[in-house]
Amino acid sequence: MNLKIAVVPGDGIGPDIVAQAIRVLDKVCQLNNHSVSYETVLAGGAAIDKVGVSLPPETLEVCKKSDAVLLGAVGGPKWDKVESSNRPEKALLGLRSGLGLFCNLRPAILYKQLKSACPLRSDIIGDGLDIMVVRELTGGIYFGKKGKSEDGNEAYDIMSYTRPEIERIARKAFEIAQKRNGKVTSVDKANVLETSRLWRATTEEVKKDYPDCSLDHLYVDNASMQLVRNPHQFDVILTENMFGDILSDEASMITGSIGMLPSASLREDSFGMYEPIHGSAPDIAGLDIANPIATILSIAMMLRYTFSLAKEADSVEAAVYQALEDGYRTPDIYTDGMIKVGTVGMGDAIVERI
Amino acid sequence: MNLKIAVVPGDGIGPDIVAQAIRVLDKVCQLNNHSVSYETVLAGGAAIDKVGVSLPPETLEVCKKSDAVLLGAVGGPKWDKVESSNRPEKALLGLRSGLGLFCNLRPAILYKQLKSACPLRSDIIGDGLDIMVVRELTGGIYFGKKGKSEDGNEAYDIMSYTRPEIERIARKAFEIAQKRNGKVTSVDKANVLETSRLWRATTEEVKKDYPDCSLDHLYVDNASMQLVRNPHQFDVILTENMFGDILSDEASMITGSIGMLPSASLREDSFGMYEPIHGSAPDIAGLDIANPIATILSIAMMLRYTFSLAKEADSVEAAVYQALEDGYRTPDIYTDGMIKVGTVGMGDAIVERI
Ligand SMILES: CC(C)[C@H](C(=O)O)[C@@H](O)C(=O)O
Ligand SMILES: CC(C)[C@H](C(=O)O)[C@@H](O)C(=O)O
Repeated sequence: MNLKIAVVPGDGIGPDIVAQAIRVLDKVCQLNNHSVSYETVLAGGAAIDKVGVSLPPETLEVCKKSDAVLLGAVGGPKWDKVESSNRPEKALLGLRSGLGLFCNLRPAILYKQLKSACPLRSDIIGDGLDIMVVRELTGGIYFGKKGKSEDGNEAYDIMSYTRPEIERIARKAFEIAQKRNGKVTSVDKANVLETSRLWRATTEEVKKDYPDCSLDHLYVDNASMQLVRNPHQFDVILTENMFGDILSDEASMITGSIGMLPSASLREDSFGMYEPIHGSAPDIAGLDIANPIATILSIAMMLRYTFSLAKEADSVEAAVYQALEDGYRTPDIYTDGMIKVGTVGMGDAIVERI
Repeated sequence: MNLKIAVVPGDGIGPDIVAQAIRVLDKVCQLNNHSVSYETVLAGGAAIDKVGVSLPPETLEVCKKSDAVLLGAVGGPKWDKVESSNRPEKALLGLRSGLGLFCNLRPAILYKQLKSACPLRSDIIGDGLDIMVVRELTGGIYFGKKGKSEDGNEAYDIMSYTRPEIERIARKAFEIAQKRNGKVTSVDKANVLETSRLWRATTEEVKKDYPDCSLDHLYVDNASMQLVRNPHQFDVILTENMFGDILSDEASMITGSIGMLPSASLREDSFGMYEPIHGSAPDIAGLDIANPIATILSIAMMLRYTFSLAKEADSVEAAVYQALEDGYRTPDIYTDGMIKVGTVGMGDAIVERI
């Protein structure tokens, strides 16, 4: 197979961690006789600095012509004063809408080797955690019309959803649930919001096509409690853009290891953008201490979702698991008695184990 | 002083717990030579069953003519099929807007006697927790225009805020912070939402009048993580209606004792509505097992915020504390070796200690 990847290293530690992810992908391709090519493009603060806009049109073009996008991280305090229409975050939103990436997959996985980092009591978390948050990513209030009054004393943001928008993300959630434990929990605020009532009715409709799956509904306030009280009740969480933003981050934090978690943002076809969920951590950029695992696991998601190379994806996940098992730790996940390594050292440990 | 209270027992365990709260208030008034009168009115499911609407106009009238409202709980699965414009929750929203209760105070307190119920690791929670969430309660997307297209295939909800709406809730937050540790954390999504940018700018303006307080800003997704990672970083959390709904519930759950937490919903003057944060738990209604403490602590908030009777409020809180210290526990908070009591038994234990 021939893999054509657009690479957006971005800001802060972005370039550090992306470099290790590329080493991993190279090794996988070499072992399995795939060819891979990369085209590196600018976005975020790096793009503001170089060309004055956070998402240059060429970047979008190159991404569109590739099979998948690998993104490091964008943003940082350096660009906090940039006017909001051109902030690094706009690049992310622009990539999502420009590429039609309506389906955000956010696994919240707790590795048993890192259990001690979990902020929850050990009797609650048990032996680990494995939740998949499916977040709608191109609709809702983030992309709705917004504005303010002329005198600046009033502002508004419109949340809106159409039935087809809800249908397609619900289908993704059920398809993913079918490969897991078949349990979908849809989160909304149907007791208050009209969009949530449409959300609930539509997910119920879609469910009929997936008799092997179950569907429950939780209000978003309750969901934020249940994640803390008993996260094991969840298998797949399906929710709209903003609720997904909040709940996926809460679920991630419950694993205690933000540096470990990848994400995928998908289109209807196989195209996708893959990135770690953590930020750009500019304070540690270039110091060879950032944890590359979240980005490396994003490569595994890419192999699985864009290229349908399940065996190759498994091999990356297994290598990460084995490196942890063998005691390798970057500073963010280091505990006594383990082997402390830097960004490149962790890359080495994982590449060797593929 | 003469205290004129409107009482809305509501549904499920509402009547059980409200009865105990009234005993407590009676005792406090008797000891301190205040007179108190109660007028009981219908709302929620109880009102739907009796008069066909969840918020009868008389209820609103009686509440308006009183000094404060004591509410038990509303709603339950029995009314799940009622059409949404007349659901029990509508009564709550109607009371909030009808009475102008724009300021919701949601303390998240962990009692040291109940530390073992906290879902967080003991090294994270330490010796307890005391956060005050200040939630805007009559604006934002909950009260904005909403609707759907004629064919029902599209729905929308408008989130909007005006500068004065933000100013008045921000002032409340700073005033409360002044009596605590002076640290306000405002939560928004200013990197995406126009309303959040107005929120951020306005809170910054208001801050200038409170030089003794600090003001930080967090994005809502980050806030949902920080509550789990390190809740002690928070003193007062100030946020808009929907974010406050989600985060105040998350903060409550982190204490592990939902049955202990009161709330106040205030107007600009001293008028307020007081209620436990937990639900109506219809499955245990009338069985004398519901925990009345959250409702009793709501009485303490009423004494403090509506009647400025700080000494009386303290005496209620001290009595609750002492009853816990002496080992009294309802089933929801029972642990080995403690004295198990029912709703009335807990009422007895607290009334005796005032
Ligand atoms: C940077 C921001 C716009 C973005 C979002 O809220 O979607 C981020 O928080 C995320 O979750 O990817
Ligand atoms: C019942 C519902 C409308 C209400 C809300 O979301 O405000 C409840 O969740 C609360 O927090 O008091």
